[in-house]
Amino acid sequence: MPQPIDPCFDDILRAADRIAPYVRRTPVLAGEGPWAGLYFKCENLQAVGAFKARGACNAVFALSDVAAERGVVTHSSGNHAAALSRAARLRGIPAYIVMPRGAPAVKRAAVEEWGGIVTECEPTLVSREATAAALCARTGGVLVHPYDDPAVIAGQGTALLELTESMDSPDVVLAPVGGGGLLAGTALAARARWPGVRVIGVEPVGADDAARSWSSGILQPQLAPATLADGLRGALSARTFRLAQAYVDDIVTVSEDAIVAAMRLLFDRLKLVVEPSGAVPLAAVLEGRVSAARTAMILTGGNVDLSQLPWLK
Amino acid sequence: MPQPIDPCFDDILRAADRIAPYVRRTPVLAGEGPWAGLYFKCENLQAVGAFKARGACNAVFALSDVAAERGVVTHSSGNHAAALSRAARLRGIPAYIVMPRGAPAVKRAAVEEWGGIVTECEPTLVSREATAAALCARTGGVLVHPYDDPAVIAGQGTALLELTESMDSPDVVLAPVGGGGLLAGTALAARARWPGVRVIGVEPVGADDAARSWSSGILQPQLAPATLADGLRGALSARTFRLAQAYVDDIVTVSEDAIVAAMRLLFDRLKLVVEPSGAVPLAAVLEGRVSAARTAMILTGGNVDLSQLPWLK
Repeated sequence: MPQPIDPCFDDILRAADRIAPYVRRTPVLAGEGPWAGLYFKCENLQAVGAFKARGACNAVFALSDVAAERGVVTHSSGNHAAALSRAARLRGIPAYIVMPRGAPAVKRAAVEEWGGIVTECEPTLVSREATAAALCARTGGVLVHPYDDPAVIAGQGTALLELTESMDSPDVVLAPVGGGGLLAGTALAARARWPGVRVIGVEPVGADDAARSWSSGILQPQLAPATLADGLRGALSARTFRLAQAYVDDIVTVSEDAIVAAMRLLFDRLKLVVEPSGAVPLAAVLEGRVSAARTAMILTGGNVDLSQLPWLK
Repeated sequence: MPQPIDPCFDDILRAADRIAPYVRRTPVLAGEGPWAGLYFKCENLQAVGAFKARGACNAVFALSDVAAERGVVTHSSGNHAAALSRAARLRGIPAYIVMPRGAPAVKRAAVEEWGGIVTECEPTLVSREATAAALCARTGGVLVHPYDDPAVIAGQGTALLELTESMDSPDVVLAPVGGGGLLAGTALAARARWPGVRVIGVEPVGADDAARSWSSGILQPQLAPATLADGLRGALSARTFRLAQAYVDDIVTVSEDAIVAAMRLLFDRLKLVVEPSGAVPLAAVLEGRVSAARTAMILTGGNVDLSQLPWLK
């Protein structure tokens, strides 16, 4: 069950007010023809190309001036790193980003474009966490975890909050599951605003820690994630698992082929650039893992190497 | 000067009411960082992936029941053909589409998906027009020209009308120029709603009939168009040229390299799939052909072969 340290729906409402000047109210597209009944919340069109802008802005702007002045620290090679760099710049404080040696140049460029200060580490979780801890100690900066943070989770929940303001309740809401921050925030917001909706998390079968944790009832590690969906290779934390158990209805998995097919369809039919992680919910519809008259999903991000699109391989 | 047969601003207001149930109110994205001051009206997210849905719906739904019942006819291998097929299906009437033999299979599929009935012709303008005229005579259907039609022009103008309802007047509005229907509708709407704005048409240097007509003051033919921007290979008609002369401030041209660069930036930075024709206005900004504090542009369409993206060649 949720603990006092977990975010609640009021935190999402406060987050929405706090971040409104700093994030886009992203559009919702309704499918037509064979896609009638599908609704897409376009977080790929969010600042930095991902919903991560929401949680990062909420965490950064929730800090007191005294807490904020030494800056913020995170370990991430993905969208959270760029989002935190941007949020810190908007607040006028430094962002220290730990990235593994050999991370793609494009990811590093996205961080540096927003003024993030990169520190390299070895490509292991132990090295990432140790390097981040040392940076916090040295700079006095505040660690903003990519998902295991109540303010981040509350921020991510604002995407679904906006969705509830643009449409009537669908039957099902789908969100991808990596570390579980988006799913937790989504489920919290959905439960409060759309009491009858089913909230389903979707993850690649090659990174199925959440599905295994869900079915066993015990938090399972992510062993050797093998998926194109680079944003979903992380594992649930105790907090995000607890919130999922409290508020989510089901977790399903999808194949890599379905992820690629869904991604291409999103480019082709909706004219949206969506990264593999963001195509995972539609993959669940394509594979028949979810079937409902009206299904809404969050297209989480659009950061993908355009010279390496997976259907060209 | 405009003639009594030309559309006026009231026609655009009426078109907006008429087509509201059948088209998307597309989002407007505001650039940030180095793109601050740029505003994008996302008609690539329109039904059929192009603004052409607007003009086609207006033309089809403006017909009386008696005029409509025999259906509509056009000659087009592009977005107008799919848009007219869709509009006709929504009204419950047939659409007869003349396409040149050898048109890309994907274009034909987009028409047939909406129930359009394809008649092949030789790939010459004479054959297209003769085949369409014969179809009109045989079926009793009404010809809906892709751009040389007052109802089509008024429909296209609704994109800019919506834009004026979502933002304050920018300094400049950019629209691509092919046959000139979008530019004419855009300029009409802009003049009425944003009296101080400059309206500039942009076309590829390899299909510069409009720029030549503009600078000479005499309608010039499109000779041998050579551009990736397949939607802009057509030529102005007497009507669209007259409207451009009356309401447009300038017409500029852009290089093919700039079109490809702009297209890739739209994918990469805005996470939008935009076809070459739709990237032409941004190309004008990249090449310094247009410079203003606040520039709005219409991203006209997103129908592009995803296995043949131009930066992969």
